[in-house]
Amino acid sequence: MKTIKVERVLPILEWGRRYDRAIFLSDLVAALIVTIMLIPQSLAYAMLAGLPPEAGLYASIVPIILYAMFGTSRSLAVGPVAVISLMTAAAIGDVVQAGTAQYAEAALVMAALSGSMLLVMGVLKLGFLANFLSHPVIAGFITASGIIIAASQIQHLTGIQASGHNLVEVLHSLLQNISAIHLPTVVIGTLAVGFLFWVRSGLKPLLLRLGMADYSAGVVARTGPVLAVAGTTLAVWAFELDARGVSIVGTVPQTLPPFTVPGFSMELVSDLALPALLISVIGFVESISVAQTLAAKKRQRINPDQELIGLGAANIGASLTGGFPVTGGFSRSVVNFDAGAETPAAGIMTALCLAVASIALTPLVYYLPKAALAATIVVAVLSLVDLGVLRRSYAYSRSDFIAVLVTVLMTLGIGVEAGVGSGVVISLLLFLYKTSRPHVAEVGLVPETQHFRNIRRHQVLTHPQLVSMRVDESLYFANARFLEDLIYTRIADDRAVRHVVLMCSAVNEIDMSALESLEAINHRLAELGIKLHLSEVKGPVLDRLNRTDLLQHLSGKVYLSQYQAVQELTGSVISPEFCQ
Amino acid sequence: MKTIKVERVLPILEWGRRYDRAIFLSDLVAALIVTIMLIPQSLAYAMLAGLPPEAGLYASIVPIILYAMFGTSRSLAVGPVAVISLMTAAAIGDVVQAGTAQYAEAALVMAALSGSMLLVMGVLKLGFLANFLSHPVIAGFITASGIIIAASQIQHLTGIQASGHNLVEVLHSLLQNISAIHLPTVVIGTLAVGFLFWVRSGLKPLLLRLGMADYSAGVVARTGPVLAVAGTTLAVWAFELDARGVSIVGTVPQTLPPFTVPGFSMELVSDLALPALLISVIGFVESISVAQTLAAKKRQRINPDQELIGLGAANIGASLTGGFPVTGGFSRSVVNFDAGAETPAAGIMTALCLAVASIALTPLVYYLPKAALAATIVVAVLSLVDLGVLRRSYAYSRSDFIAVLVTVLMTLGIGVEAGVGSGVVISLLLFLYKTSRPHVAEVGLVPETQHFRNIRRHQVLTHPQLVSMRVDESLYFANARFLEDLIYTRIADDRAVRHVVLMCSAVNEIDMSALESLEAINHRLAELGIKLHLSEVKGPVLDRLNRTDLLQHLSGKVYLSQYQAVQELTGSVISPEFCQ
Repeated sequence: MKTIKVERVLPILEWGRRYDRAIFLSDLVAALIVTIMLIPQSLAYAMLAGLPPEAGLYASIVPIILYAMFGTSRSLAVGPVAVISLMTAAAIGDVVQAGTAQYAEAALVMAALSGSMLLVMGVLKLGFLANFLSHPVIAGFITASGIIIAASQIQHLTGIQASGHNLVEVLHSLLQNISAIHLPTVVIGTLAVGFLFWVRSGLKPLLLRLGMADYSAGVVARTGPVLAVAGTTLAVWAFELDARGVSIVGTVPQTLPPFTVPGFSMELVSDLALPALLISVIGFVESISVAQTLAAKKRQRINPDQELIGLGAANIGASLTGGFPVTGGFSRSVVNFDAGAETPAAGIMTALCLAVASIALTPLVYYLPKAALAATIVVAVLSLVDLGVLRRSYAYSRSDFIAVLVTVLMTLGIGVEAGVGSGVVISLLLFLYKTSRPHVAEVGLVPETQHFRNIRRHQVLTHPQLVSMRVDESLYFANARFLEDLIYTRIADDRAVRHVVLMCSAVNEIDMSALESLEAINHRLAELGIKLHLSEVKGPVLDRLNRTDLLQHLSGKVYLSQYQAVQELTGSVISPEFCQ
Repeated sequence: MKTIKVERVLPILEWGRRYDRAIFLSDLVAALIVTIMLIPQSLAYAMLAGLPPEAGLYASIVPIILYAMFGTSRSLAVGPVAVISLMTAAAIGDVVQAGTAQYAEAALVMAALSGSMLLVMGVLKLGFLANFLSHPVIAGFITASGIIIAASQIQHLTGIQASGHNLVEVLHSLLQNISAIHLPTVVIGTLAVGFLFWVRSGLKPLLLRLGMADYSAGVVARTGPVLAVAGTTLAVWAFELDARGVSIVGTVPQTLPPFTVPGFSMELVSDLALPALLISVIGFVESISVAQTLAAKKRQRINPDQELIGLGAANIGASLTGGFPVTGGFSRSVVNFDAGAETPAAGIMTALCLAVASIALTPLVYYLPKAALAATIVVAVLSLVDLGVLRRSYAYSRSDFIAVLVTVLMTLGIGVEAGVGSGVVISLLLFLYKTSRPHVAEVGLVPETQHFRNIRRHQVLTHPQLVSMRVDESLYFANARFLEDLIYTRIADDRAVRHVVLMCSAVNEIDMSALESLEAINHRLAELGIKLHLSEVKGPVLDRLNRTDLLQHLSGKVYLSQYQAVQELTGSVISPEFCQ
C-alpha cells in the first residue's frame, strides 16, 4: 500500500521498474531527434521572451528532468513555449528594462512564483480551476497571442526596431521606424519563412513520392527549422553578412546551466504575482490539453493535480538554473511522441543531450542570424492562429462568440493579461446572465406516452384547469424573482386555472432565495384559490426541501412523476376534458 | 396607444385621472400621521449619516414628490433610511472630515451619483442586476449593518466619543474613551430605549385590553418615537439638562429645502463611484422588497425598471435640495400603508406637511437630546437584526450559510462595502463551483411506469449492456471535462456496456466547450465499441446541436424520451434480460 502512494506522487517509480533495453533504445532515438529540434526552438523562445539565447537551453534541461520525475504524461516535453514566453516578456517588460541583468533576474522570479503557485494548486487539488477557462476563450487567446508574436518578430525579419506587447503597439512602432528597414536581413528572413512554409506543406508529400517511408518522411519534414538555421548560419559565415549589419546570435557561453537563486523583493513579487498566476493557469491548460490528447492515443491517463505538481517542479527547476517559465509544449511533445518516446526517460536523455550541446555546440550558433530564429517562431505560431473559431462560435452560440471576440480584441488591443482576464470574466458573466433568465416551457402530454414536452413545439394534450411548467434551470438567487414574475403573468391571463404543477426535472438545486420565492408563490397562488404542486423533484433537492417547512405549507402535493400528477389532478389522462 | 406609453413613464397620469374626494381624505389622514412619524426619523438618520439634522427633513421633501411622480408603488415612502445613511457616512467619512462643509457637499455628490446610476440602470432596464444579491446575503448584510448602527449610537446614548465604520473600530474607540461617560445622558438614553422597547411590545396589547380598536391601537403604538422625543425634549428644557452637558439638537434653520448644486470634482467622483453603486443597488433592493410586499397585499404590480427611474429621480432631487441618498424605507412605508394611503398623492401631501414643519416647527426641537434620537435609531435597527438567518441557512445549505457568514463577518469586521461586495462575490463563486461539479445520476426504469430515477435511491430496472446517465446540470465549460472523466470512469470498470445513453432532461444548455467534450466522448466510446445516445434533449438545445455536425458523427441516436431509447436498445422494456 505504501509504495502505491509514493508512486502516485513520484510516477518515476512506476515506469522505472518495468524499464528494459528495447524501451531504452526507443527512448534514446527519440531523445536524439528531439534534441536537434529543441536547439533552435529554445534559442528562439528565449529571444521572444527578451532573454539571452542560452536561457532557452537552460530552461529546457533541468525542467525536463523534474517533469519526468513528477509528471504523469509519458510523452509531454516541457520547456519554453511561444505563448508563455510572450506572456513572460509582457509581464517583466512592464516592470524592468529589457536586456538588463534585472530583466533576467525577474524572469527567474517569475518562474519561481509560477512554480510555487502550480505546486500549491496541485497540493490543494485546485486543478479544476483551469476548467473555468472555456475552450472558445482559450482558442481566441492562443490565436490572438499567435498574431502578436508573429507581428513582434517582424522586427527581426526586417531589422526595423519595434517594441510593445499588443498588436497596436507593435504595428505602431514598426511603422514609426520603417525607414530603418535592412535589406540583407529582409532577404534572409523572407527566404527562411518561405522555406519553412514549404517544408511544412510540400516536403513530406515530396519525400513520400520519392519513396520514403511515412515515418521517416514525417521526421525529416520536422527538421525544417534545423535546416533553415544551419543554412542561414552558413550563409552569414560565408558571405560575412554580420559585417553588413545582419543581427546574429553571437557568443553563447559554453557551460552547463548555472545555479541561480531568484532575488525576491516584496515589490517585484507583488508586481509579478497576478501575471504569474495567469502564466501558471494558461501554461497548465496548454500543457494538460497536449498531455491528454497524446495520452488518449495510447489509452493512458493523466492526473491533473499531479500534472500541476510536475509543472510546478519544472518551473522551480527553471528558476534555479538560469531559465524562465516553462510548460508542456505542443510541437515539442508531438515530436517526442512521433519519434517513439516510450517513457519519461526519453525526456531525461533529451536533457542530457542538451546539456552536452550547451557545453560543446554553442560556438556553432555564433553566426546564426536572428532573422532565421524569428522565421521559425513566425511559422510555428501562425499554425496556432485559428480565426475560424470566430466563425464557428458565431454559428453555434452568441455567448460563445462574444467570449471569443472579447478575448481576441482585448488581447490584440491591450495585451495578453487583459485578454485572458476579460475572456474568463465575460464568459462567467454570460453564463450567470443566462442562468438568471432561464428557459421555462409550458408542457403537455405527448399522446400515447407518459412523456411531457413543450406545448409550443409538440402536439400535446393539455387540460384547461391545469398548468404544467417545466423550469429549465436550477432555481437560485439570480433567477428566483424571474420565476415568480413568470408564474404570476401566466395565471393572470387565465381564470380557469386551478392547479399549477412545477415540473422540476431540470431543477438541480433550490437555494435559500429560491425557497423563499417558492414560499411566496405558494402563498400568493393559495390566495387566488390555485394549488401549487411539484413533480419530478430530484432526490438531493427533495432531501433539502424536507428540512424546511415548505412542503407542510404547500397547498398541493409533490408527485414522483409529472404523469402521476396529471393523472391524479385531472381524474384520468385521456379524458374528454383534454383538448389538443 | 400614445397615452399608455406616457403613463408607463409617468405613472402619476394613471392614478391621477381616477382621483376623487374619498381617496383624497384617506390620503390626507395618512399624510398627517406619516409626517408626525417622519420628523424624528428624519432628524435621527441625518445624525447617523453625520449631517446636520435639517438635512434629514430636506431629504424627505422633494424626493417624496419626485418618487410619487415616477415610481410605481402606491404605498412606498421614500426618504433617509438607516442602512443607506450608514453606508453614506462610511463612504464619505473615508474621503472628507466629518462635520465640515465639504462633508455635506460630498453627501450631495453621493446622492447625485447614486441618482444618475439608478436612472441609467432604469433606462437600460438593468433592474435584473439586483437579482445577483441573494436573499441570505441581503439578510446577513442588513443584520450586520443593524449591529454596527446600534453600536455607533452608543456614543450618543452615553456621551462617550466614538468613531469608526465597522464594529471593531466602534467598540475599540468606545472602550478607549470609556472614562468620558456622562451620567445624565446615560439616564435619558436608557429611559428612552426602555420606553421604546415597551411601546413596541407592550403598548398595543395594553390599548387593546383597554378597549381601543385594533387600527387605532396600532397607530398609537407607532407614535412611540414621537412620544419619546417630546418627553425627553420637555425634560431637557424643564431641568436645563443642556447646561449640564447633555447634547441637544440646537438651532435648526427655519427654511424650505435650499437649492443646492453638488460640486463635482473628478477626484471626488472617482472616490465615490463604487460606494455610490453599492448604495444604489442596496437601496434599490431594499426599496423594491418593501414595494413588492405592500403591492402584493393589494394585488398591485411593481415595475422594477420604472422603480429605478423613480428612485433615481428622488436621489437627484435630494442632491439638488440639501439632502443625501434616499430610498424606499420599510418602517415609513408600512406606516403610510397602515395609515390608509391610497395613492402617491399621500406622499405629496406628506412632503407638503414636512415643508410646513421645516418652516414652522424646527424651534420645537431645539432642546431635543441627541440621546433620544439615538434611542429611536437603536430600537428601529435592532428590529432589523436577525441572527437566526445564520441558523436557518446552516440547516438548509452549506453554501447559503457560507455566503451569510462571510457577509456578516466582513461587514462587522471591515465595513459595509467590503461586506456586501464579498457577499455577492462569494455567492456567485459558490454557485459556479457547484455547477462545475454537477450531480450525475445513473438511472433505471421505475417498474410499471415510463419513468426513470436514480438507481441508488429507487428500486428500478436496468440492463447490463446499457448505461443511462442523467446529468443534472447544463453542460458548459466549467463542467465539460468533469463529465468526460465521469463517463470514462463509469465504463472503465464494466466491459459489458454496449450503449451509453445521456439523459438530457436537466441539460438546459450545451456550450461550445461542452460540445467539444461530447465529440471527444463520442469518439472515444466509438473506439471502445460503445455507442453514445442522447435522450430527452430539449428543443432549444437540439436546435443548436443541429447546427453542428455532432449528430451526424454520433455513433448512436437521439431519442425523444429515455423510455423510447431503452425500449429500442434492449428490444423490450420488461424483458427477462432486465435485472433488478
